[in-house]
Amino acid sequence: MSILKKQNFVTVADLTPDDVMDIVLRSQAFKRGAQIQLKRPVYAINLFFENSTRTHTSFEMAEEKLGLHVLSFDAKTSSVSKGESLHDTVKTVESIGADIAVIRHSKDAYYEDLIQQPRKIAIANAGDGAGQHPSQCLLDMMTIYEEFGHFRGLTVGIAGDLAHSRVARSNMMLLKKLGVNLLFCAPDQWYDAEFDSYGTRVEMDELVQKVDVLMLLRVQHERLTDQSNQTFSKETYHQQYGLTHERAKTLKPTAIIMHPAPVNRGVEIASDLVECSQSRIFEQMTNGVYTRMTILESLLAGHNLLMPQSSIKIGVKTNAISY
Amino acid sequence: MSILKKQNFVTVADLTPDDVMDIVLRSQAFKRGAQIQLKRPVYAINLFFENSTRTHTSFEMAEEKLGLHVLSFDAKTSSVSKGESLHDTVKTVESIGADIAVIRHSKDAYYEDLIQQPRKIAIANAGDGAGQHPSQCLLDMMTIYEEFGHFRGLTVGIAGDLAHSRVARSNMMLLKKLGVNLLFCAPDQWYDAEFDSYGTRVEMDELVQKVDVLMLLRVQHERLTDQSNQTFSKETYHQQYGLTHERAKTLKPTAIIMHPAPVNRGVEIASDLVECSQSRIFEQMTNGVYTRMTILESLLAGHNLLMPQSSIKIGVKTNAISY
Amino acid sequence: MSILKKQNFVTVADLTPDDVMDIVLRSQAFKRGAQIQLKRPVYAINLFFENSTRTHTSFEMAEEKLGLHVLSFDAKTSSVSKGESLHDTVKTVESIGADIAVIRHSKDAYYEDLIQQPRKIAIANAGDGAGQHPSQCLLDMMTIYEEFGHFRGLTVGIAGDLAHSRVARSNMMLLKKLGVNLLFCAPDQWYDAEFDSYGTRVEMDELVQKVDVLMLLRVQHERLTDQSNQTFSKETYHQQYGLTHERAKTLKPTAIIMHPAPVNRGVEIASDLVECSQSRIFEQMTNGVYTRMTILESLLAGHNLLMPQSSIKIGVKTNAISY
Repeated sequence: MSILKKQNFVTVADLTPDDVMDIVLRSQAFKRGAQIQLKRPVYAINLFFENSTRTHTSFEMAEEKLGLHVLSFDAKTSSVSKGESLHDTVKTVESIGADIAVIRHSKDAYYEDLIQQPRKIAIANAGDGAGQHPSQCLLDMMTIYEEFGHFRGLTVGIAGDLAHSRVARSNMMLLKKLGVNLLFCAPDQWYDAEFDSYGTRVEMDELVQKVDVLMLLRVQHERLTDQSNQTFSKETYHQQYGLTHERAKTLKPTAIIMHPAPVNRGVEIASDLVECSQSRIFEQMTNGVYTRMTILESLLAGHNLLMPQSSIKIGVKTNAISY
Repeated sequence: MSILKKQNFVTVADLTPDDVMDIVLRSQAFKRGAQIQLKRPVYAINLFFENSTRTHTSFEMAEEKLGLHVLSFDAKTSSVSKGESLHDTVKTVESIGADIAVIRHSKDAYYEDLIQQPRKIAIANAGDGAGQHPSQCLLDMMTIYEEFGHFRGLTVGIAGDLAHSRVARSNMMLLKKLGVNLLFCAPDQWYDAEFDSYGTRVEMDELVQKVDVLMLLRVQHERLTDQSNQTFSKETYHQQYGLTHERAKTLKPTAIIMHPAPVNRGVEIASDLVECSQSRIFEQMTNGVYTRMTILESLLAGHNLLMPQSSIKIGVKTNAISY
Repeated sequence: MSILKKQNFVTVADLTPDDVMDIVLRSQAFKRGAQIQLKRPVYAINLFFENSTRTHTSFEMAEEKLGLHVLSFDAKTSSVSKGESLHDTVKTVESIGADIAVIRHSKDAYYEDLIQQPRKIAIANAGDGAGQHPSQCLLDMMTIYEEFGHFRGLTVGIAGDLAHSRVARSNMMLLKKLGVNLLFCAPDQWYDAEFDSYGTRVEMDELVQKVDVLMLLRVQHERLTDQSNQTFSKETYHQQYGLTHERAKTLKPTAIIMHPAPVNRGVEIASDLVECSQSRIFEQMTNGVYTRMTILESLLAGHNLLMPQSSIKIGVKTNAISY
């Protein structure tokens, strides 16, 4: 295992399978208590322009656990309300001395303009429009690896709104690279033909029976139009694309259930299955903190803010990695 | 004095008089500078779903003084706005690694569902609907004890909106247990017959003359209906149930004035009496920080997060407590 | 250089030229890495009742760099929404134990009531209505001194909305005291006759050609009436009072461009000049942090919260100061 060095962490598209394994193993090391040492005080700021509890709190926890100073930011009371652009806001916090900006923004690939030229400030993407959500994607990888100890040969089924999910597209790309077989189940309006090159589209009953990992996607009511929201039937969706009690009985005993949350109980999954023994939904959140520590560490390393000894490998296997 | 150990701190209903004395004395020790030692980094998050300056800032100060890490939370930008339930929000921050959640919520007894089963995360109730407000109640006890050195035989008068006050009901229960004589003064619509079992209802003039402690309650305009707000006359209320200049002259010289704040100046109390020599309104806020340190410490103790030596008694009398 | 001791820091009107030089030099020392030692944990709270990114984040960074504990505050969810006055809010956070309150408020001279009597809590003014903005003013002084090494004899031109700018009035007073020649350019409705006593009003072309320092002021759309906003033409303003590409070519090669930000790109200044080699707009933000450290340090000194050794002079010249 080696520590990635990155100037910015905005996508998983450029990660090799080895990179993913490095990230997963380093995240597991953090979960076991690994710590880092900083060269000097480091300041992080979380610029969230979309609502979030999980990702925001998780990044803040990761920052605290790494010993970073966290500067507060509230988009609603910021100068963005005076019409300031994201570019100028980022340049501002950079000038003020922030070393890392964790950004969530509704615009697809908002970060492209920001990372064109070298900067003092490092950008961590916490979700862009319907684009990338690298930390969610990588915590999913960690959760799968933690369960099975490998990726190759596993069958992963992704069900729901594949088209608008920040996570689905990234996950299918990474999982395919890692040798996973993919099944999809989605309504026509939430399925793109391009997904066919990554896996096989099947009915929900078949998907649930065959998978080692069931990835349910969130129905994003807040992204639907008013029109769509009115005609959307939770019960119909649940029966066609959800994990009902009946379907849950057909899961392999070793299969696990995942969901990026927040869960719409009774829609994507029957409410009392959210915390069942096969669910890893809350374990994903736990793993998210450690994955984000790894992402932040890669930025600290890329910007030369880590003491050399902090890269000491702490009891993790360094060769013969299988994925 | 011993340190309470609690899994959650959501009500004062189960506190014995000895518990109350332990809390008051420990809070006084914190006021004199007592410190604690933690076994490991501890993370607190303040989940406030109702507006607050005093209680929120006071808990945050208490957390900082105890050396806890405080994670930020803004209900307005959280996933609650995506329809997430309180249960799922709490389970989320627990999964992310928060050790203590301080919660204020408009629903009465919101915490009942949360504390049914043992949890890693400790819940501190910072106010539930028209229910409990344990930290406010206990800081009142501390403020009274600090003034008089005992409770038994004191006369405490509570005036105003007794029916909707989170504090009044808790206070009258605790004060009666502690041997205090209670007087009440309230408009009919803000008085419940059950209060008769705790004390005696009198006119405001009589109440003010007889009390050692005058507890004024806040007129909660934000909880009144539009209708009630229109017909409510500040001046009439002030004359009938408020501390006017005339009435203030009839207070015993040793009597003290308390109010949970924020004060409606000129309604519950004449504006320039808020900071008069008999007022303890701002001292209550100072004591609130130390009382909340004690509450949080009881959760740290209950969850085995305190170093043993931190329970050393620091110059407080340990027997012959009189209340 | 000596460290100022202040009970509150609300205006620059009472600063002597020597005071300004002390502040500038001390800020430069902080920029080079000077540190302080506190006698005990110190708690700061930033009470911002107007939107801000720059000033809020900059003060928070300054507080973190000085080792202060920062308490969170959100005006929108505070008791201010229950009608609490600023006076009571400040007295509340003082009672809770905050040592320093940094306040931005829309009311001119909101602080007058607060500083009438001695207080435990120190007030730092981060902007009052159309009044003072001491930290912005002083970071401008630092930026000019950093560039030229002196003030006397420089020509500074201030262009734009002089009448409503918190910064313009303070800057012209201080700059005149420091021996600077002042030029102004402003529309009639944004110019007061009293400014004539500080400098000379000229056309924008002349101003740009003559200055060593070009201070552009922000068009504050959010302070304009709806009426004014409708008739306001960005293009016309840019041509008459902005730094166009044409005018920029006529600047002295040694001249610098300043702006308090957020910039309206294409209005006060052509967009691609914001980050040109003569611009110090983002350097101003960097200097703002160090200036605010100096302001906060003066309050720590005034309230006897600094360890004596922290006032050690660190490699700065202590006599023969030229300004």
